[in-house]
Amino acid sequence: MISFENAYKKVLDHSQNYGNEAVSLNNATGRVLAENIVADRDFPPYDRSTKDGIAINFKAFEKGQVEYSIQGTLAAGAPQSKLNDSYDCLEIMTGAVLPENTDTVIMYEHIAIKDGKATVIKPPILGQNIHYQGGDEKKGAVVLHKNRKITAAEVGVLASVGKSEVLVKKLPKITLISTGNELVDVHETPLPHQIRKSNMHTLTSALKEEGILPSSLHLLDEKHKIEQSLEIALKENDVLLLSGGVSKGKYDFIPDALQALGVQKVFHRVLQRPGKPFWFGVHKELGTVVFSFPGNPASTFANYTIYFKDWFNKTLGLPIPKIDVILKEDINIGGDLTRFIRAEAGIKNGKLYAKIIHGNGSGDLTSLVKSNGFIKLAPKTTPYKAGDLVPFIAARSIL
Amino acid sequence: MISFENAYKKVLDHSQNYGNEAVSLNNATGRVLAENIVADRDFPPYDRSTKDGIAINFKAFEKGQVEYSIQGTLAAGAPQSKLNDSYDCLEIMTGAVLPENTDTVIMYEHIAIKDGKATVIKPPILGQNIHYQGGDEKKGAVVLHKNRKITAAEVGVLASVGKSEVLVKKLPKITLISTGNELVDVHETPLPHQIRKSNMHTLTSALKEEGILPSSLHLLDEKHKIEQSLEIALKENDVLLLSGGVSKGKYDFIPDALQALGVQKVFHRVLQRPGKPFWFGVHKELGTVVFSFPGNPASTFANYTIYFKDWFNKTLGLPIPKIDVILKEDINIGGDLTRFIRAEAGIKNGKLYAKIIHGNGSGDLTSLVKSNGFIKLAPKTTPYKAGDLVPFIAARSIL
Repeated sequence: MISFENAYKKVLDHSQNYGNEAVSLNNATGRVLAENIVADRDFPPYDRSTKDGIAINFKAFEKGQVEYSIQGTLAAGAPQSKLNDSYDCLEIMTGAVLPENTDTVIMYEHIAIKDGKATVIKPPILGQNIHYQGGDEKKGAVVLHKNRKITAAEVGVLASVGKSEVLVKKLPKITLISTGNELVDVHETPLPHQIRKSNMHTLTSALKEEGILPSSLHLLDEKHKIEQSLEIALKENDVLLLSGGVSKGKYDFIPDALQALGVQKVFHRVLQRPGKPFWFGVHKELGTVVFSFPGNPASTFANYTIYFKDWFNKTLGLPIPKIDVILKEDINIGGDLTRFIRAEAGIKNGKLYAKIIHGNGSGDLTSLVKSNGFIKLAPKTTPYKAGDLVPFIAARSIL
Repeated sequence: MISFENAYKKVLDHSQNYGNEAVSLNNATGRVLAENIVADRDFPPYDRSTKDGIAINFKAFEKGQVEYSIQGTLAAGAPQSKLNDSYDCLEIMTGAVLPENTDTVIMYEHIAIKDGKATVIKPPILGQNIHYQGGDEKKGAVVLHKNRKITAAEVGVLASVGKSEVLVKKLPKITLISTGNELVDVHETPLPHQIRKSNMHTLTSALKEEGILPSSLHLLDEKHKIEQSLEIALKENDVLLLSGGVSKGKYDFIPDALQALGVQKVFHRVLQRPGKPFWFGVHKELGTVVFSFPGNPASTFANYTIYFKDWFNKTLGLPIPKIDVILKEDINIGGDLTRFIRAEAGIKNGKLYAKIIHGNGSGDLTSLVKSNGFIKLAPKTTPYKAGDLVPFIAARSIL
């Protein structure tokens, strides 16, 4: 058995690069940017009025002019105009191009309009209410750096610079494989000694949130069948996520089958709870990465969250979140295993606290829905105390 | 103009109920549960071995028995068996049904097997390594309450209790409407006085993350056309999100057009920045809710985040997040407007800090990608100080 820290490092050392692909802007949300995005023009592209009102030449005001004849009206979307007489004004709308021979915009609230003339009520300041060309970004500036997750704000920037198609990181092709003769389908009524499949549904849902639609497969505990199916799955996928069949039981055929098929074992069994019997390996020739989790629902979910998600983040070039939370109660775990304890993190007065969710061990799925992640406790012979800072691994969005 | 608090309350007072619909478990991720979910059997459904090893009758061990003849092997998925002789044992696999006449499981690591006999190395404790029937949940217990967002863990529970179909809240039908003659499509090369549409793409992306695929529509600043299009859109949608055309400009036809079509104005213009010209109304007969945001990208995005998202959460029965963060620097906003200032919230040592992202006012889209939300500052004539707790509104997932 190896330590958790060692196992975790080995998993991350096997992060991959699946290359890039172009997607339309409409399909870019949730993907990871694979190119730097450059401003194709200045932003704003022209001196832009930020208010509805009048554009004037400030020199006229300085010379004592307070009443201005209105030469015309400028809408957003009209080409640049020109103020012919510096002692006149042009009405201008928000977003319109500042006309030549003007340098100041006075909003309607600060003028009175009567008989085609605008009278200044509140004295303007030179250059007010203008968003200058290039004030946000200059043409050629990098407005988005690659290795960034695309959310709504990024989509807005991509649209602004004309990226109707964008280069993103390719996602790995994944198949989920569950094992176990005790499992029946969700729509079935299990016999007394059977239970319904849940891990494949849990992981399908989790991967969906990462933008991946995995295939899934259930294998009975039959050595030959397992080998046949795994051989195909190894060839057809970038990643296999297995659950079950990796313990010390007589029908735990998975590790042997994987090794017989050329998957190189990186490690098997980790000094952690839950999730100790985790088997991890890589098929060097095919490049397939194999996460083989123990079958208990809580073990599968914990290992997915702890190992796979960070492997996935690193594979896509995303940062790996590192968060510390404040323990709300004492807890004694002993010096043998790294523990991942279901917890509910919450924010109060700018502080992030974690309340432990007491469950029933690794088979207990319902306590998972009461938590939003795991606190990670390294082996320690003395108790962790309320108030201690401990690492937190989020299993769902908290904030 | 009304205060922000008043406007916010009025928006939330107009939350709706769009009813429920059944979806398959595969399509339930991200939806909101509309029914309580009950355990259809005990969980676990039987006394379940949590280890691979042997099942014994503890009385035999108490009477001094350390070597047990192995009567057979029990796999997970096999019906319950029976230990015929209390002084023998049965090999048992993780997940298998505890056989009759046994009460204790000893894992392989604590026994030695030779010639069909298992010898105990480490003394067991009565009842160890058994996950008792109903230990997690009793049949009939509510395992998931309605008004809960369905994520991976909930999907696992739904699968376990046999919900291949689940009742969820219906999502509103939404059309996004942008206005403005200065706007061209993303794939076009704008003339010097034009800019590309971005708001519709930003909001489409944001709504996609909520599971909604909105329609979108662009209207030129032509009064008659606007009325015609809005009339149809009001009939065909539950919600309209508009951007642009609500300021004091001469071509800002939206408020009048909406009112002419029977949309009752709830308010127009809020004492806030950005997003002051926000117009909000409801068509009483049709039930259509209309959020009409100012057209600046940062204003639209801020108002969407501040108003629409909480309206949407309340409409679906979800809790409305309330988070306070610690200010990292002093800031003086004056006593007139509620300010929503782009900020980057981050966690350090269990504390949640907000760093202000200094941008260029409401037209500045690129500073949005540097932030992950807004701090909300109520009007105040004295400065907010570093260390103050202020409300934070997340615009993307932080944790």
